[in-house]
Amino acid sequence: MPFINSKVNVALSEEEKELIKDKLGQAISLIQGKSESWLMVGFEDNYSLYFKGKNNTKLAFIEVKIFGHASDRDLDHLTAEISRIFKEVLGIAQDKIYIKYEEAEHWGWNGANF
Amino acid sequence: MPFINSKVNVALSEEEKELIKDKLGQAISLIQGKSESWLMVGFEDNYSLYFKGKNNTKLAFIEVKIFGHASDRDLDHLTAEISRIFKEVLGIAQDKIYIKYEEAEHWGWNGANF
Amino acid sequence: MPFINSKVNVALSEEEKELIKDKLGQAISLIQGKSESWLMVGFEDNYSLYFKGKNNTKLAFIEVKIFGHASDRDLDHLTAEISRIFKEVLGIAQDKIYIKYEEAEHWGWNGANF
Repeated sequence: MPFINSKVNVALSEEEKELIKDKLGQAISLIQGKSESWLMVGFEDNYSLYFKGKNNTKLAFIEVKIFGHASDRDLDHLTAEISRIFKEVLGIAQDKIYIKYEEAEHWGWNGANF
Repeated sequence: MPFINSKVNVALSEEEKELIKDKLGQAISLIQGKSESWLMVGFEDNYSLYFKGKNNTKLAFIEVKIFGHASDRDLDHLTAEISRIFKEVLGIAQDKIYIKYEEAEHWGWNGANF
Repeated sequence: MPFINSKVNVALSEEEKELIKDKLGQAISLIQGKSESWLMVGFEDNYSLYFKGKNNTKLAFIEVKIFGHASDRDLDHLTAEISRIFKEVLGIAQDKIYIKYEEAEHWGWNGANF
């Protein structure tokens, strides 16, 4: 039950979305018990973002929402991998990417909460 | 002080938004102490979403943010009702809908925090 | 490592975004240890919002996400200031603005978590 949502200030082609989605689907397995078979992915491109007061470079704000908890170690690995993906596919410098995690206690699917 | 935000990968007409908003305004009363008189509702349609690696079906990611806490039982009822609403109005299959809850400790309105 | 995201149901000009971004960059210093040098700011304008069942007035839903914790007192000051900014620049009544806070335990930047 993870959800990864990306706000980026560049335009994304369908091909880029597909590629990033595939790579995130692999990366999510770095968290114990999670896999692409429960992953939802969202994209918001051409998003209006500023970092350190400026918007003259490529930026990304990525939110990873999971049901329950993950270990610090797994989240460290996931941050490294997500940063690598956005650098590789979109050319966003890793120091222009924030990745924020949320561990949710209540999460519904198919009409009921887990 | 709840906020319900819906990301859906279909287009929403004004009539559909009005209808869903009205139904969510009723549903929020399933949480003790909450009512439409404090509810804010947001919609993001035509959202780029993938679930299980695919985007070839109707999908929804719905976030319910509340100030303070709610009982598990109330949230179970709310998940059932929200899922029913999105199935009924938009034809989104209930197993293609995620509903994530966030219980916030700090929430501001009218220039001050509750 | 704060992120301030604003959903407003009015159109924002580039000048208004710049002005609000500058003012938020000052305001974030009201939280001990935070400054514009780590602040990311996002804007979603023309957002579909309803409050108390209506959408016939200017509305804003603002999320402040920070790494770690902040004191109640600092967050009180920040809510007052953010409300003032949106009232001043966009003419949104303070009782039509929600500001929700999230204190995150896990936050990545530059390929690693803090």
